[in-house]
Amino acid sequence: MYLLYRGETFDPNFFYHSKIDIDHSFLLFDKKKKILFVSAMNEAIAKEKFKGELVIYKNLESIEKYIKGEEIGCDFSSISASLATKLNKITKISDCSEILSELRRKKSIEEVNKTKKAVQITKEILDGLDFKVAKTELDIKKQLLKKTVECGVEMAFEPIVSTDQTTSFPHYRAGTKKIGGLVLVDYGVKYDHYCADLTRCFILDGDKKKKEEYEKLQTICFDVIDNLGSFKLGSEVGLYSEDRLIKAGFPKLIHSIGHGVGLEVHEKPSLGKLSKDKIETSILAIEPAFYLKKYGMRYEETIYFDGKKGKIL
Amino acid sequence: MYLLYRGETFDPNFFYHSKIDIDHSFLLFDKKKKILFVSAMNEAIAKEKFKGELVIYKNLESIEKYIKGEEIGCDFSSISASLATKLNKITKISDCSEILSELRRKKSIEEVNKTKKAVQITKEILDGLDFKVAKTELDIKKQLLKKTVECGVEMAFEPIVSTDQTTSFPHYRAGTKKIGGLVLVDYGVKYDHYCADLTRCFILDGDKKKKEEYEKLQTICFDVIDNLGSFKLGSEVGLYSEDRLIKAGFPKLIHSIGHGVGLEVHEKPSLGKLSKDKIETSILAIEPAFYLKKYGMRYEETIYFDGKKGKIL
Repeated sequence: MYLLYRGETFDPNFFYHSKIDIDHSFLLFDKKKKILFVSAMNEAIAKEKFKGELVIYKNLESIEKYIKGEEIGCDFSSISASLATKLNKITKISDCSEILSELRRKKSIEEVNKTKKAVQITKEILDGLDFKVAKTELDIKKQLLKKTVECGVEMAFEPIVSTDQTTSFPHYRAGTKKIGGLVLVDYGVKYDHYCADLTRCFILDGDKKKKEEYEKLQTICFDVIDNLGSFKLGSEVGLYSEDRLIKAGFPKLIHSIGHGVGLEVHEKPSLGKLSKDKIETSILAIEPAFYLKKYGMRYEETIYFDGKKGKIL
Repeated sequence: MYLLYRGETFDPNFFYHSKIDIDHSFLLFDKKKKILFVSAMNEAIAKEKFKGELVIYKNLESIEKYIKGEEIGCDFSSISASLATKLNKITKISDCSEILSELRRKKSIEEVNKTKKAVQITKEILDGLDFKVAKTELDIKKQLLKKTVECGVEMAFEPIVSTDQTTSFPHYRAGTKKIGGLVLVDYGVKYDHYCADLTRCFILDGDKKKKEEYEKLQTICFDVIDNLGSFKLGSEVGLYSEDRLIKAGFPKLIHSIGHGVGLEVHEKPSLGKLSKDKIETSILAIEPAFYLKKYGMRYEETIYFDGKKGKIL
């Protein structure tokens, strides 16, 4: 049996198997049954939305009789060390995070459609950015977030907005820097919990060299997507991309070429030089990039890979 | 020595002791020194912002030589079971979450001022709500979030917007329900990482009974705040509040009367009937409430308690 916990924040495995997002709740399940443990405060909402057995719990003692003596699989990447310690005193728990994320790897049509919707909304938001009224990176961030609220969706992750020098840092966040000739925006919204992850560069000064470099990055991105069916492991995609980037005159990538996308922005598989993850049916983000001392660029698409071909969502 | 980790999401203890918020980073510190471990991707940002020794790390092996053989205190409420298992293989780690949150309990003037700013912005946002144009709970939520972005701050937690029947559920979130005669909004923004937590009820239909009930709740809230100096333990505040609520004709509270507020919306101390936490200098949220079958109400203020008196921020 698996025992999942959703505390203060959204938990992808809890939501995937319970179909509801409800705070401070446990889900105990196997192939035959599902039991949801919620606090008295969440009883009414759980009754309305959850299909399965419902138990109102006060503390871990209320759950004890359901798990004692059983072998319980937990998501060690999500539960805290503190909760694990308490559960270990009740029964034998083991880490099933790999199995749990593998269960989420293959996406249903419904999941693909939700992701597609998240991608579409994100593209509309990115297309609608107004660089004329924006003075700083933070102004662009404000535009992204306001449009996200207007569209009735949530941000999947805090946007990256960088310009000129700050585009050199892949993990930079928006700051007070004045918008210059080059702007990089890495952003995605969540639609019904499913994430999009896209990066676009905007060459506002029309710099010819940068335009050519960006086109090269796009070509590499599309070629990786087209060739996905010929790779078996994440490492092969990593090596292929590195080879393509070097041949195009760019330095080696300092992050992976891609990753799974779903209820989390970053999930399995990892597409990097060291990854042993298999390339199978899934939703992926592909993000070739280069980072020089004075500036950097990245181009990223969220795609559906059906096992044979990759398709941009 | 303490070892703190900031992964995908903000970590209050990591931020409190490092003064920076940087993803996938470790902070190792004691009274004499602070060492920050960041990935190569975050090197430039860390160099600019962190005061202390900086180490670029690839994986846990890079940190091993700094902690091996040492007794290391970690925040078990924050680190995952998976990370704890890995660290335990390197050295002896123990749970210091209680000590770490106690270190954050007493607030500096700077922290009080940041919280005050968060409270002021939240109050302005709540005062500016337009119930005439809002049709549903989600419309009110949209107004809250848009104003939050416009003010250049972040939400401290997802807003609760309920109306009529849904006000009976303390943990309800905004839904598609049409705005009725009574609206409850529980919300707070973060200013420079410091949270506000406020609840207001809006009696749009002018119902006299509800107005009186709301005034009674407000009086109880102010009295709890005025009397804080006379309590030693969280349980005493809980019992005093329960007594006041019952005497006013309300049912017993199904949540605690209050909690600490700071880098987290809910932190130590807990002010509930079962709490053994001491009532000492801190920032607190006080939230008397009642929940009937047909509707509920809550009134909440974020306050500074200087050890003698509580002051609304």
